[in-house]
Amino acid sequence: MCTAATYLTNHFYFGRTLDLHFSYGEEVVITPRNFPFSFYGAGERKRHYAMIGTAFVPDGFPLYYDAVNEKGLCMAGLNFVGNARYFPDRADRCNVAQYELIPFLLGDCASVAEAKKALKTVNVTARPYSSDLHAAELHWLIADKKEAFVLECVEEGMKIYENPVGVLANNPPFPMQTFRLNDYMRLSPKQPRNAFCKKLGLKPYSLGMGGIGLPGDLSSPSRFVRTAFARLNSVSGTSEEESVSQFFHVLGAVEQPRGCNEAEDGYEYTVYTSCCNADTGVYYYSTYENRCLTAVDLRRADLQGAALFRYPHVRRQNVILQNG
Amino acid sequence: MCTAATYLTNHFYFGRTLDLHFSYGEEVVITPRNFPFSFYGAGERKRHYAMIGTAFVPDGFPLYYDAVNEKGLCMAGLNFVGNARYFPDRADRCNVAQYELIPFLLGDCASVAEAKKALKTVNVTARPYSSDLHAAELHWLIADKKEAFVLECVEEGMKIYENPVGVLANNPPFPMQTFRLNDYMRLSPKQPRNAFCKKLGLKPYSLGMGGIGLPGDLSSPSRFVRTAFARLNSVSGTSEEESVSQFFHVLGAVEQPRGCNEAEDGYEYTVYTSCCNADTGVYYYSTYENRCLTAVDLRRADLQGAALFRYPHVRRQNVILQNG
Amino acid sequence: MCTAATYLTNHFYFGRTLDLHFSYGEEVVITPRNFPFSFYGAGERKRHYAMIGTAFVPDGFPLYYDAVNEKGLCMAGLNFVGNARYFPDRADRCNVAQYELIPFLLGDCASVAEAKKALKTVNVTARPYSSDLHAAELHWLIADKKEAFVLECVEEGMKIYENPVGVLANNPPFPMQTFRLNDYMRLSPKQPRNAFCKKLGLKPYSLGMGGIGLPGDLSSPSRFVRTAFARLNSVSGTSEEESVSQFFHVLGAVEQPRGCNEAEDGYEYTVYTSCCNADTGVYYYSTYENRCLTAVDLRRADLQGAALFRYPHVRRQNVILQNG
Amino acid sequence: MCTAATYLTNHFYFGRTLDLHFSYGEEVVITPRNFPFSFYGAGERKRHYAMIGTAFVPDGFPLYYDAVNEKGLCMAGLNFVGNARYFPDRADRCNVAQYELIPFLLGDCASVAEAKKALKTVNVTARPYSSDLHAAELHWLIADKKEAFVLECVEEGMKIYENPVGVLANNPPFPMQTFRLNDYMRLSPKQPRNAFCKKLGLKPYSLGMGGIGLPGDLSSPSRFVRTAFARLNSVSGTSEEESVSQFFHVLGAVEQPRGCNEAEDGYEYTVYTSCCNADTGVYYYSTYENRCLTAVDLRRADLQGAALFRYPHVRRQNVILQNG
Repeated sequence: MCTAATYLTNHFYFGRTLDLHFSYGEEVVITPRNFPFSFYGAGERKRHYAMIGTAFVPDGFPLYYDAVNEKGLCMAGLNFVGNARYFPDRADRCNVAQYELIPFLLGDCASVAEAKKALKTVNVTARPYSSDLHAAELHWLIADKKEAFVLECVEEGMKIYENPVGVLANNPPFPMQTFRLNDYMRLSPKQPRNAFCKKLGLKPYSLGMGGIGLPGDLSSPSRFVRTAFARLNSVSGTSEEESVSQFFHVLGAVEQPRGCNEAEDGYEYTVYTSCCNADTGVYYYSTYENRCLTAVDLRRADLQGAALFRYPHVRRQNVILQNG
Repeated sequence: MCTAATYLTNHFYFGRTLDLHFSYGEEVVITPRNFPFSFYGAGERKRHYAMIGTAFVPDGFPLYYDAVNEKGLCMAGLNFVGNARYFPDRADRCNVAQYELIPFLLGDCASVAEAKKALKTVNVTARPYSSDLHAAELHWLIADKKEAFVLECVEEGMKIYENPVGVLANNPPFPMQTFRLNDYMRLSPKQPRNAFCKKLGLKPYSLGMGGIGLPGDLSSPSRFVRTAFARLNSVSGTSEEESVSQFFHVLGAVEQPRGCNEAEDGYEYTVYTSCCNADTGVYYYSTYENRCLTAVDLRRADLQGAALFRYPHVRRQNVILQNG
Repeated sequence: MCTAATYLTNHFYFGRTLDLHFSYGEEVVITPRNFPFSFYGAGERKRHYAMIGTAFVPDGFPLYYDAVNEKGLCMAGLNFVGNARYFPDRADRCNVAQYELIPFLLGDCASVAEAKKALKTVNVTARPYSSDLHAAELHWLIADKKEAFVLECVEEGMKIYENPVGVLANNPPFPMQTFRLNDYMRLSPKQPRNAFCKKLGLKPYSLGMGGIGLPGDLSSPSRFVRTAFARLNSVSGTSEEESVSQFFHVLGAVEQPRGCNEAEDGYEYTVYTSCCNADTGVYYYSTYENRCLTAVDLRRADLQGAALFRYPHVRRQNVILQNG
Repeated sequence: MCTAATYLTNHFYFGRTLDLHFSYGEEVVITPRNFPFSFYGAGERKRHYAMIGTAFVPDGFPLYYDAVNEKGLCMAGLNFVGNARYFPDRADRCNVAQYELIPFLLGDCASVAEAKKALKTVNVTARPYSSDLHAAELHWLIADKKEAFVLECVEEGMKIYENPVGVLANNPPFPMQTFRLNDYMRLSPKQPRNAFCKKLGLKPYSLGMGGIGLPGDLSSPSRFVRTAFARLNSVSGTSEEESVSQFFHVLGAVEQPRGCNEAEDGYEYTVYTSCCNADTGVYYYSTYENRCLTAVDLRRADLQGAALFRYPHVRRQNVILQNG
């Protein structure tokens, strides 16, 4: 499964973990402004906003997992298995296949406000990318510096939820995830005070006891709460170094060590973690194998180009030998 | 506070997190065989085993937080505030100050068996390193490839506990920490089966639900359980790269993002995380600021030397720009 | 707040706790067949099924908290504050005030099937009983020997949910309560087996450890889970004595001792607990003050009557002195 | 297993639950002052304090589970399996068999202070009552109006622990049970305030959310915490009726419904719950089958007598028919 989050200091940061039991061969992909998108129902886009993110590129088309465009609009798709429902084509709507949704929105929209407006005319359809690749069951976190929302296509229709938490995980649907936060409202980074019984001299015997009750497992609602706690209580400097470092620490709270989460065909682990500075377009990532941060800078690419720029994820551990 | 762990694949690995609200200016320090140790009660050691680890060196003497000697014996001191009790000097014992304990044992002992034997004659005393540095209240994880134990000096005396869990955190005393694992015995990386009521069609809606009940806060007993779960269920390859990577993922489960754990004078965070290959003496670490692994290789130093080799922790974020 | 449950042995039992911080002066009230009901929108019922239950009778009209009719149809209203929404009068529907709903349905319907059918034409309105008594925000558990459902009037409209759990508490809405049961699917009356790590000799040190993870507080979702666990795993004989005794033990799991749950004007406590044999019409109850079971037998009243039979709850502790 | 508690209003109350998967045939037994006790190591007591409590009387000797003497000293034995260790006879001590301990102490001591003093000379031995009845593994709650302590005979010797909590359950040893209360120090009968994140409008949606985190299962440490919470936050009137009622509500929080706790040969359930007014000697109890309170009054018996007064527990449900 996965977890996504936003973070604001002097710049706006957006990123996610991708948790799977294998790697598809992810790449950082820059789509320049003139890369031709041909959407099946929404027509052609010969020119659009440039974007950067992690994608799987099966056949020339960037299937983005998460991306940020040159205007700072950010979007990530996360597993939503069993709840996602896509719809048949409608004549009165702009039909967008699930796999087209990220480039469609990031290509056209400069902000959350524009994305919301665009979505009013959109019908998300289940049309698969190819006969081999069925439509992934997803929901999306969409954010800019000002605000964030969650897009869910469910049985009742397309739903848009404001997201003041700035976090998205997987099942259950977003309203249930946020409602559950009420159960944890008393948790705090501060040490607890004795409310159980004044007559007993109860006291903390360890730092961190204000968070007792936070769930520590790797299920989706637990990752949601844990990430929300880390993100909302985060304290960091505002420099690029400090902000990026802190972002990886926040998502570090839900990284999955291999072996702790058994899936059908292996163990889920955090294949990669990303953090993009949405203002500058610098996309940082680390992989399960390589803790070191690797970065790709959107603006070092020729954004007037027409061909994808592709940078396979570096998965070999980078170690600096200090007495080498 | 802190968490320490062991890990065995083709080699034996030992490391820890150091959680504080500031950095003392840690360094990786290699003590070569002929660095002269002058212990206050245990006499001089002109020649001893070489060792590597992270230390604070206030005045020429390496105050090790954790270290590994050239024979593969490993030792880490972790906060044990309120429970640690050191003892007055005894004429019938070898009096070792708390701050001398790591170099004393790692200098003389090649294995856990030898360390246990040595401890039979030792009296751990509260003698401070200097008038400025009072004796830290600690307990210790001591391990080699074959076995591990915990050393605690408490009101009832010096205690040695076998440690099949391979993890140590802080309060409460170790026996209580391990006893509590019984409460979590049902947790598992596997998905749960419905035992609540057969008639209800209860089922997992997310991967990772087998771990529901794991505590997610940053208090010591919660870090102990979470690390134990990650370490004992860990699945990794056996190469150096894979082993080291996995070790950092295991301790990653308890890394502290700044802001989530308020101490008196700031927020605790994971100042550094270390992992030493106890067979080869390569000591890897990352710092809060620098996710990238930095390493110091014991055997690249002249182990016949008499002066400390000191490598200040690299705390500047190392980023590799892929399209630079 | 409150908790309601069903229980089936040789007979069908239905009951609830009423948790408040004071008593309204509850009575067991038998409404015989010819007591004239005059519903504001649904017209007059000169003849209807007889019913028994606990009610507040402000002014000749039985405001039932829970009741069972002579056909074995059972219904209880439970607090649903903040979620309940009643609707304006509609010309195309049978308008039934919230306070009329229990006598309206129990008067006309002999079964859950009939009640569901009747509800298809009903519009539940917010019309208050009087200017002093605003419409309580409620949802309802409706059950017969064969099946149970929950009726919720919420912003989205009137909702009917099948209830295989046989339990109802308060907020949040029923679908969220039942969904949460998935989180507890592994809990069991059986002792846990060690799944955490085979190498550690973890073992139970107390009976009952299979239920670790059950919440023990008095909030509504916790009471729901705890009652569900007790009810669904209940083991009892099938005699009247054994069945009734067991029912009170099941609801005993969520009884509220005074002092543990502070409300605005005092402490919530379990004002009364009821259990009605829906087949025979014998209504048993105990009060906070009087643990002893008191009973009222529907069929000992003249069911052809036109006046209410009223039995104020016995609240004086009944103690049998064995050597008196 | 079992739970015991004390409660003080205008009078002092002491009682317990007995949780087993069957009934031994319990009786309330009054031992008058001249019933001759012949202790195997402690000699004869021809005259002693009278006492009342629940006992199994296999052969003329009252094997008390819990009892109170005419001076108000109270004592209950609770299962402590796996931790209790009794000792071989010692020439320098007063050897008291485990099964003799309650009559030995209650016969001689008028207060906790006297009991503690007496215990200084006592050696608790494993001598069985008979070849059929091995020594039960127990620990004891001993209390009077002023204070309470726990007596545990463990591998390290006989231990006496002050008990300001006023509760005892079973495993693990008492110091670990009380230490764990620190983990729950933040729980409260009051509604929680939002400490998670001020920016999110988190709020309680149900009363009782201040107790979220209380464990709800039937294991011993969970029963200990739950009873402690109920007892220490208890609010009741001070009359005999109100005090006794409240006491049963406090222990009601840990009563075991049959089916929720599977033992080897059946399901544990709360065989009986008792509450003795230690000032007046009135002993109240209810059984699993009979919720109604039954009482035996110590002072209605001829306390100068020499023969036991025995009152088998009333286990038939007592129901008062209000319209009979």
